[in-house]
Amino acid sequence: MDTFGELRVPSDKYYGAQTVRSTMNFKIGGATERMPIQVIKAFGILKKAAAEVNKDYGLDPKIADAIIKAADEVAAGKLDDHFPLVVWQTGSGTQTNMNVNEVISNRAIEILGGKLGSKDPVHPNDHVNKSQSSNDTFPTAMHIAAATEVHQVLLPGLQTLHDALAAKAEQFKDIIKIGRTHTQDAVPLSLGQEFGGYVQQVKYSIERVKASMPHVYELAAGGTAVGTGLNTRIGFAEKVADKVAALTGLPFITAPNKFEALAAHDALVELSGSLNTVAVSMMKIANDIRFLGSGPRSGLGELILPENEPGSSIMPGKVNPTQCEAMTMVAAQVMGNHVAVTVGGSNGHFELNVFKPMIIKNVLNSARLLGDASVSFTNNCVVGIEVNTERINKLMNESLMLVTALNPHIGYDKAAAIAKTAHKEGSTLKATAVKLGFLTEEQFEQWVRPQDMLGPK
Amino acid sequence: MDTFGELRVPSDKYYGAQTVRSTMNFKIGGATERMPIQVIKAFGILKKAAAEVNKDYGLDPKIADAIIKAADEVAAGKLDDHFPLVVWQTGSGTQTNMNVNEVISNRAIEILGGKLGSKDPVHPNDHVNKSQSSNDTFPTAMHIAAATEVHQVLLPGLQTLHDALAAKAEQFKDIIKIGRTHTQDAVPLSLGQEFGGYVQQVKYSIERVKASMPHVYELAAGGTAVGTGLNTRIGFAEKVADKVAALTGLPFITAPNKFEALAAHDALVELSGSLNTVAVSMMKIANDIRFLGSGPRSGLGELILPENEPGSSIMPGKVNPTQCEAMTMVAAQVMGNHVAVTVGGSNGHFELNVFKPMIIKNVLNSARLLGDASVSFTNNCVVGIEVNTERINKLMNESLMLVTALNPHIGYDKAAAIAKTAHKEGSTLKATAVKLGFLTEEQFEQWVRPQDMLGPK
Amino acid sequence: MDTFGELRVPSDKYYGAQTVRSTMNFKIGGATERMPIQVIKAFGILKKAAAEVNKDYGLDPKIADAIIKAADEVAAGKLDDHFPLVVWQTGSGTQTNMNVNEVISNRAIEILGGKLGSKDPVHPNDHVNKSQSSNDTFPTAMHIAAATEVHQVLLPGLQTLHDALAAKAEQFKDIIKIGRTHTQDAVPLSLGQEFGGYVQQVKYSIERVKASMPHVYELAAGGTAVGTGLNTRIGFAEKVADKVAALTGLPFITAPNKFEALAAHDALVELSGSLNTVAVSMMKIANDIRFLGSGPRSGLGELILPENEPGSSIMPGKVNPTQCEAMTMVAAQVMGNHVAVTVGGSNGHFELNVFKPMIIKNVLNSARLLGDASVSFTNNCVVGIEVNTERINKLMNESLMLVTALNPHIGYDKAAAIAKTAHKEGSTLKATAVKLGFLTEEQFEQWVRPQDMLGPK
Amino acid sequence: MDTFGELRVPSDKYYGAQTVRSTMNFKIGGATERMPIQVIKAFGILKKAAAEVNKDYGLDPKIADAIIKAADEVAAGKLDDHFPLVVWQTGSGTQTNMNVNEVISNRAIEILGGKLGSKDPVHPNDHVNKSQSSNDTFPTAMHIAAATEVHQVLLPGLQTLHDALAAKAEQFKDIIKIGRTHTQDAVPLSLGQEFGGYVQQVKYSIERVKASMPHVYELAAGGTAVGTGLNTRIGFAEKVADKVAALTGLPFITAPNKFEALAAHDALVELSGSLNTVAVSMMKIANDIRFLGSGPRSGLGELILPENEPGSSIMPGKVNPTQCEAMTMVAAQVMGNHVAVTVGGSNGHFELNVFKPMIIKNVLNSARLLGDASVSFTNNCVVGIEVNTERINKLMNESLMLVTALNPHIGYDKAAAIAKTAHKEGSTLKATAVKLGFLTEEQFEQWVRPQDMLGPK
Repeated sequence: MDTFGELRVPSDKYYGAQTVRSTMNFKIGGATERMPIQVIKAFGILKKAAAEVNKDYGLDPKIADAIIKAADEVAAGKLDDHFPLVVWQTGSGTQTNMNVNEVISNRAIEILGGKLGSKDPVHPNDHVNKSQSSNDTFPTAMHIAAATEVHQVLLPGLQTLHDALAAKAEQFKDIIKIGRTHTQDAVPLSLGQEFGGYVQQVKYSIERVKASMPHVYELAAGGTAVGTGLNTRIGFAEKVADKVAALTGLPFITAPNKFEALAAHDALVELSGSLNTVAVSMMKIANDIRFLGSGPRSGLGELILPENEPGSSIMPGKVNPTQCEAMTMVAAQVMGNHVAVTVGGSNGHFELNVFKPMIIKNVLNSARLLGDASVSFTNNCVVGIEVNTERINKLMNESLMLVTALNPHIGYDKAAAIAKTAHKEGSTLKATAVKLGFLTEEQFEQWVRPQDMLGPK
Repeated sequence: MDTFGELRVPSDKYYGAQTVRSTMNFKIGGATERMPIQVIKAFGILKKAAAEVNKDYGLDPKIADAIIKAADEVAAGKLDDHFPLVVWQTGSGTQTNMNVNEVISNRAIEILGGKLGSKDPVHPNDHVNKSQSSNDTFPTAMHIAAATEVHQVLLPGLQTLHDALAAKAEQFKDIIKIGRTHTQDAVPLSLGQEFGGYVQQVKYSIERVKASMPHVYELAAGGTAVGTGLNTRIGFAEKVADKVAALTGLPFITAPNKFEALAAHDALVELSGSLNTVAVSMMKIANDIRFLGSGPRSGLGELILPENEPGSSIMPGKVNPTQCEAMTMVAAQVMGNHVAVTVGGSNGHFELNVFKPMIIKNVLNSARLLGDASVSFTNNCVVGIEVNTERINKLMNESLMLVTALNPHIGYDKAAAIAKTAHKEGSTLKATAVKLGFLTEEQFEQWVRPQDMLGPK
Repeated sequence: MDTFGELRVPSDKYYGAQTVRSTMNFKIGGATERMPIQVIKAFGILKKAAAEVNKDYGLDPKIADAIIKAADEVAAGKLDDHFPLVVWQTGSGTQTNMNVNEVISNRAIEILGGKLGSKDPVHPNDHVNKSQSSNDTFPTAMHIAAATEVHQVLLPGLQTLHDALAAKAEQFKDIIKIGRTHTQDAVPLSLGQEFGGYVQQVKYSIERVKASMPHVYELAAGGTAVGTGLNTRIGFAEKVADKVAALTGLPFITAPNKFEALAAHDALVELSGSLNTVAVSMMKIANDIRFLGSGPRSGLGELILPENEPGSSIMPGKVNPTQCEAMTMVAAQVMGNHVAVTVGGSNGHFELNVFKPMIIKNVLNSARLLGDASVSFTNNCVVGIEVNTERINKLMNESLMLVTALNPHIGYDKAAAIAKTAHKEGSTLKATAVKLGFLTEEQFEQWVRPQDMLGPK
Repeated sequence: MDTFGELRVPSDKYYGAQTVRSTMNFKIGGATERMPIQVIKAFGILKKAAAEVNKDYGLDPKIADAIIKAADEVAAGKLDDHFPLVVWQTGSGTQTNMNVNEVISNRAIEILGGKLGSKDPVHPNDHVNKSQSSNDTFPTAMHIAAATEVHQVLLPGLQTLHDALAAKAEQFKDIIKIGRTHTQDAVPLSLGQEFGGYVQQVKYSIERVKASMPHVYELAAGGTAVGTGLNTRIGFAEKVADKVAALTGLPFITAPNKFEALAAHDALVELSGSLNTVAVSMMKIANDIRFLGSGPRSGLGELILPENEPGSSIMPGKVNPTQCEAMTMVAAQVMGNHVAVTVGGSNGHFELNVFKPMIIKNVLNSARLLGDASVSFTNNCVVGIEVNTERINKLMNESLMLVTALNPHIGYDKAAAIAKTAHKEGSTLKATAVKLGFLTEEQFEQWVRPQDMLGPK
């Protein structure tokens, strides 16, 4: 029974009429489309923090403590089965806030020995939601969930990848290989330098994500319905942010402007933009590695990727760069998620953006996938990468692009003539250069040394 | 035990070593990221069809029949718990094909009284996968799954919405209201005409989706590893497509070019493009309806949307256009999914696109969400829309834009002068027109009649 | 001087105050952001058609004929300098419609010997815009422009590419090469088959674009301000569409629902979706070709691409796949344009979508770039592609994947063992197979024949 | 004449054979698709800086000084007509680098009294391009161009908008109005608070863009062909960055990792992500303002937007929110541009990303459009916004949502009953509350005071 009339509520669940009503009104997508559990856990943290502050402001300690205990259970994931709602509901996430209020209220009532569904002694709205509105709690939970996922999954995953690539860059620092630009042969570099580029991309990925966090740490709590803070007490917003910060260990603060915090989700669009940039980096790195490891006999064949599983149901012995494939698929997904977040973020109206559940679903999905895929890619691919030194040496020594080293000595036009002639005749650079009379064999050997071509002089 | 060595396999599952290995190698995203069950069911259909054809071509009938029975159970959703793999695996979907082969093989072995895991008498590769490769089975399953979801969920959902909107357009055909262009007041139209525009959009949505299906009906089966059909028999491809068509009731045919069917997924990118266009239509319709129903007292207030649930945890009595919000969130998601599909579709290399699981996940998600949301939006919003006739009449009669009817009589410049003067003075058009001496009261009443402004003359 | 007051208008231009006012109010982006000239030309066609119909309905023939003559000049591109407005103006394109009305009116006045700017005897609104509104003329011009660009640039470009690829597929039909899946070595196919996949993609590209045209052929003209057709005559819409069809040779018809035609641009979103799919195909094809042509010595090296220009300012003799690069950049742009169109298309409100100039700009840009790039790619790359037969043969003969041909003879597991052993030992398949005792040398030679692996048996 | 053979070069142009060859090989898109002039000017700055450093390292001062003078002219825009190449060329931008080298070389030759095209005494490669490669110069020019556009156009534009909105927020701080969430009536806030949310969004927009700049300030110059710095001198990279910093007044530094700087464009993808977030903010703000200003009689009507031009060719007196429309179209374009940048950024291979011209075109376009549109929107809309106080007061006083103020006094359920009853009966809250016996008239007047509902207590 809610303000809309009677309904049957399952007796083994803590949720109530408003939750049941939502499951009836929004049969969209089924169980795989449920509100991400990270949002529910974030709500647990928020409701606990709010109850603590409300207790300071005079809420009956017995009620407050029961709410705190129930909220703790939500945050700890003990009540996950009681949150059946899908993402595709009210755009404000109101029904999930109601779901949380109902579950915590009923669990708190149970703790206090009351009757489930009685709203007594713990009322879902008057007590659990005290000084709150869906309009400020849901965005607060979004930010808590996003920041937590970034810190618990994404950043550690990226760091793991970074460290493994850095170790490889160090390990490969003396292996000189042919460079490739435009997919074509180019002047040499060391394999360590090549991997060093990837290391830099991942290092900057971590920086980018961190640089996007300050506005995510801003919490809407205390803004209540439209951002004014109506029906809260002065100081409530700041105290709740402090409590959340203490509970999570993350530097949350109260949003300096609650109107912006409810009406827009620019902070999450910004974070999603960083995740998109990370995805761009990952696509590049994983693509390179699969091409460098292509073969075994008809590809570039410079790297030997670990064999993790049979690659084909019809081609025995084939081993595929499956970790690269998982990573590039994740990258594509994150790019798509980012557009969904962008569209949702841009379509807010007046005092409230109502694409909230969709936005947070996509941000959390991107963070999780990138973090998990980074770890999987690291453990099952990067750390096991070996080098086909024989192949690398063969390709480099046959390369025509070493001719570039002659530019400062004989000029661009003559160097070009050597390369073109050698290419046409299938001959070596040295033989061609001497034959064309541009230099002596000794000069060639002195001037064209791959190990001298890896940096400025 | 697979070709890679020993592994522990759960004894209560039909899947085998290759599936277990994949769960170990791809810990990305968790249970919510599992391969869509529609793909698994589509594999059930395909494996049944292939076994029937292989039987025709000489496969031991006992083995074939056991495979067919097991495949039927997969298609019927009876073995869903045996498919634990996530989307973020091999980009060819090989591991899911292996998973299906293992489950069907073991279930068939069980049917025949054999020992699970023995590969005897039904071998997952040699029998269940006979004349097949992951490279042609997975795209075949993708197409079966997509076409099925389109026909079972999306098109019926759109038709439901179409019919409900068409009924409303008919119901509202005599209600004359102010038009709005640039969000500003414009000349009148009937509410039936306005809804008629939505009806046309949904009608065309259905046409668009159907127009995208022909290439989706093309099946890759028979192309095996790279599209040549190596290790299949002449006629295998055609027969399998026929069987699948018979089993599904959909007009599947064998793809005329198997190379394209493996290396590219343009057909699904095309379908996703249509879903994207449907999303664009839905965003427009749902946006209009929420704005036309905005209020209750400070909005446009022309429509009265059904009250389905309490709208706010803090503002009692408030009822929100939550179905519009779910629909517009779905629309944003579909636009994002489309970009993911586009990126994946564009990044195929050589004989195989390896973004297959990601592509089909997004296409299925878009089709399902649009279909489900259409039904939800219809049942919980459209059919219950009522009209605030009083409000509609008031707005129309006060409108300055009726002045347009005077253009043919007194010219554009004089008509403009009347409108601008009435606007400045807060007066009516008629009083202003007469005062400015451009026409008589009788002429005004004869020329400015909203009911005469709804069409050409 | 317009209804807003006085303004200075350049005396050497046909446009008037409303155009000048727009240049002052919308200083966004500068000259490169001007309304695409194709839209202006389409307006020329439309204004001519409308004048002809208005003449039938009683417009003074002298005035009508002058309008027709002036409109012809606009359509022919003779007055391009008189259209200075940028895309970033009114979202309805009203100011461009005004610009066209002013230019045609003044040019018609000039033809009739009147005074520029006098609006006499040809009034821009009362005569040139007779029976029209920006709201129906601009979308009509959008559709005329899009359809024309598709037919004049895009489809011929794609056909050119199709034919060149088809000729290559035929030319290469007997060249057997290693296939590649997951970027890894796979079973063989003919180069003709590989190119045949590209041919199919382009063939379907053409089909896709054509399949998107029916709704683009629907013209909004006759809908006037909100779609009702107010201030037009019955039959006006149909007659204008007929005239436009006659003038362009394209099967334009009047839109069956003018409300949809003004309020939404789903038809162009749909077309853009097809262009997006074409871009996906192009990205794949161009990517493949550059990788197959990579080298000259350290890449895959199967194809020899034409040398069109020096590839590097520092690496002499280097020749890059620049046409592939232009094509893939175009593809990326088209994918981005498509998102812009999608966002614009989804954000219409009530009776008018006001993202019109942005939408048509992007659709035209995509069509033009894809068409032009197809021709450039064909003429400067595809037709000149040669084959490095020696390299192709070498790679194929060394390949381990030929082992797949043994599956039907000795089973998957034994075949896998051969491939893995040969790979580890760097030996040939034949030697390994015999050594492992799975078959004789004669059997190997009989069973493993690349030319027999190109199709089913 | 270049290394490829003879060609006719226009005698009135400074460019040479390589430029002409590119115009012949890349007929894609025409004049509107030319390389953005900002890139050309950035090249002018770079070539000047490089010549100065080369002079320090021993380049003949006469040659160096002539190059510097010519480069200055390029940077100053004096030679714009000599850069005819389109964006759709080599993906490395090599041809534009060649174009710049040719123009500067020939202009320098002219300054020194030599013969155009003679490459003497100033050789385009050996002198103008000394210690450089396209591979490092083009990305350097990209970063210079992007940073310059951000500082000269975007940031000032955003600041202008910020200040105007902030002035309005201050001006409107005492105007109390109805809030709207879910597009529905909500509790009140001040118009100053509402605009304050916009101010915050723009303030954060500026912060976001600035936060994206650090990696854009990193210059690739000195990396030459693949990032190793081959053929440069130690210190060259740092000195060039210092010179560019001095010439532009922006804090450019040499990229710490040149491999990343050539192979990826993550820094520009990141910047584009920030521009995308700005676009999201702009879409929201412009949408709100047009809806709040909708009417004149049938919309929300709270704001009165400036009348800048006649709004309709058929509806006289109509004034449309055209600046909002330009801004929202720009926002949609920027979102699309961002996807193009994302796709391009993700598709780099090995040592060089070859989507460079496309990427910079889109980034510059986004920055310019957002900057210009901000100024246009400010000057032609924001500064002229007036308030319809009468309308605002009427809406607020009639609102049912003031009932929220009763929650702390009589509880959520009773407050809801009042609101629902008043809504059904069309009565006022006060009358209903008293009638239902929940409170007295005096209590109502004491508890429900809009001016007390604007913040916490």
